[in-house]
Amino acid sequence: MMTQTLDLAVIPGDGIGPEVTAEALKVLHRALEGTDVEVKETHYSLGAQHWLSTGETLPADVLDDIRGRDAILFGAIGAAPGDTRIPSGLIERELLLKLRFTLDHCVNLRPSRLYTGVGSPLAAPGKIDFVVVREGTEGPYVGNGGSMRTGTPHEIATEVSVNTAYGVERVVRDAFRRASLRARKKVTLVHKHNVLVHAGHLWKRTVEAVAAEFPEVQHDYLHVDAATIFLVTDPARFDVIVTDNLFGDILTDLAGAVTGGIGLAASGNINLDGTAPSMFEPVHGSAPDIAGQKKADPTAAILSAALLLDHVGQGEAAARIEGAVRADVESRTAGEQRSTTEIGDAIAAQV
Amino acid sequence: MMTQTLDLAVIPGDGIGPEVTAEALKVLHRALEGTDVEVKETHYSLGAQHWLSTGETLPADVLDDIRGRDAILFGAIGAAPGDTRIPSGLIERELLLKLRFTLDHCVNLRPSRLYTGVGSPLAAPGKIDFVVVREGTEGPYVGNGGSMRTGTPHEIATEVSVNTAYGVERVVRDAFRRASLRARKKVTLVHKHNVLVHAGHLWKRTVEAVAAEFPEVQHDYLHVDAATIFLVTDPARFDVIVTDNLFGDILTDLAGAVTGGIGLAASGNINLDGTAPSMFEPVHGSAPDIAGQKKADPTAAILSAALLLDHVGQGEAAARIEGAVRADVESRTAGEQRSTTEIGDAIAAQV
Ligand SMILES: CC(C)[C@H](C(=O)O)[C@@H](O)C(=O)O
Ligand SMILES: CC(C)[C@H](C(=O)O)[C@@H](O)C(=O)O
Repeated sequence: MMTQTLDLAVIPGDGIGPEVTAEALKVLHRALEGTDVEVKETHYSLGAQHWLSTGETLPADVLDDIRGRDAILFGAIGAAPGDTRIPSGLIERELLLKLRFTLDHCVNLRPSRLYTGVGSPLAAPGKIDFVVVREGTEGPYVGNGGSMRTGTPHEIATEVSVNTAYGVERVVRDAFRRASLRARKKVTLVHKHNVLVHAGHLWKRTVEAVAAEFPEVQHDYLHVDAATIFLVTDPARFDVIVTDNLFGDILTDLAGAVTGGIGLAASGNINLDGTAPSMFEPVHGSAPDIAGQKKADPTAAILSAALLLDHVGQGEAAARIEGAVRADVESRTAGEQRSTTEIGDAIAAQV
Repeated sequence: MMTQTLDLAVIPGDGIGPEVTAEALKVLHRALEGTDVEVKETHYSLGAQHWLSTGETLPADVLDDIRGRDAILFGAIGAAPGDTRIPSGLIERELLLKLRFTLDHCVNLRPSRLYTGVGSPLAAPGKIDFVVVREGTEGPYVGNGGSMRTGTPHEIATEVSVNTAYGVERVVRDAFRRASLRARKKVTLVHKHNVLVHAGHLWKRTVEAVAAEFPEVQHDYLHVDAATIFLVTDPARFDVIVTDNLFGDILTDLAGAVTGGIGLAASGNINLDGTAPSMFEPVHGSAPDIAGQKKADPTAAILSAALLLDHVGQGEAAARIEGAVRADVESRTAGEQRSTTEIGDAIAAQV
């Protein structure tokens, strides 16, 4: 049997990042046992700790090196909120967002599923199983803003949301394509086009145009404020949500919460045309408050590894991980206290 | 006894707007019985229906006339979502937002309270009683954007969020002032300053500066994505939330949902320096699907009338309305079907 190599970039990051990433790798290796895929891992020391000791966020040569890999497994980054040594948002922007933007991760894919037995804060959550296709390289995230007379009573600060037909269309088409492969085949565009007229109408027109290519897929529209209402009153109504970078950020944290917490929420930052590696990461952050205590739930990181395998064509291995996670999650009992490693071992054992 | 006149502008609007406004006025009149306040009402025909028959949104002379009143009671506006005769968002922008901006309604005040006996979609909502101080005249709502190469594959559409020290500071100070009058005395700033650096830092610096004037008020910070998580996992943690126009729009719809639906959510658009009348409106929309059927719950409109009375110095009358609403709401039984008028009558009877 010829072997193929999966050349992985691993960025464990800060806080609980390294702990959950170790479990994700353990499960990923297990899922590939008996296949012809050999995993090569290159670990990169990046994040808030790395910045504190070196002053580097993402040097050009490191970025180039990462760019040559097949896929990226990302843990979590960021220092403790009270740590004033690090300018707020610096690591997020110069490392995480820099990777998403430079590697053209236009689709930020965030599935939301309520597993049987997992407690939702909702009294009657219903059957939640949708995916958010969040745009990842445009919108209010472009860093296009500024301030003048900063710090004076006459300060003006702006933030410019930049949206292009090119950027919106590829994401909308990806959402329709994903919907066409799902049972319910329904896309919901979320925006605020009654106020954000220009960006909103670009999104709306693009959805209408792309919808014509997918006659089997239904579509509807919700303002972002109304969408948050439905996420708590009727989350089962959603199948595929397509939305901009900022609305997607907000909706997926809320979606993570209603499906039992962002300890279970996985994500993929997808480069659609294969010009650079895609990146897979839990939606949660580095949780400095519980770091080093083996208290973190590695499930979101493990599910992110499954998304990674699916993306590189190892759909069967991915499905084995998802099945193992489902079995593990469904067997959890309220109040149980397993360590990060114990959860990772249990899932690996069931793969 | 000398009588004072409360010179009210009433804009019933579309759909259920006129129905709920009629009940709000009924209750407002009842609450002022026996006081020295005489109410003068001037009703303005404005909204989607009015636009369809006249082509007018808010003519300058009508705006001038409204500007001379003491306060505005606003119902709801907007046509049916499927009505393609009205350009999407036109009435919202050229009437509702125009009023908010022109009359300098810088504080969009949105209290959220879970009444005993009201069903929340949350399994364990806890004691919810907070108020959102949403900025009302800046941010992404300024209509400062555009598109070029519109409708082509090369389209670029922008939306500019404009934030000023002047605009942010008055709202932040109002939030701290309100917090200082409340039991818990806590302000939470919600923004996304790790990504929206310039606007975010203006907000953050302003909160730090104003906090120094209110040593008795605590304050903390949440990114908007994290705030939505807390709104469903621990809404009781909030006392006063201060946030920008768009984040406030999103958070208050979600807050309305977790406190039992936006049928109960009231709001005030406050002109802080008294240069123009403030405007009070339910958070809900015109609900064209149930218009004319007397199915709408007028409670949000009635509570908006209470906010109005409080604002014009009739705190006692406002408290009587709030007490009557509380009594009525607490006596509601699941599945009961009272008409809009029956609910209004019941609340008026208890004032
Ligand atoms: C850390 C932050 C920049 C990031 C974002 O806003 O995208 C995070 O909230 C996320 O959702 O991945
Ligand atoms: C109708 C719309 C323009 C408005 C807003 O976005 O402010 C509404 O959603 C609200 O919250 O009052």
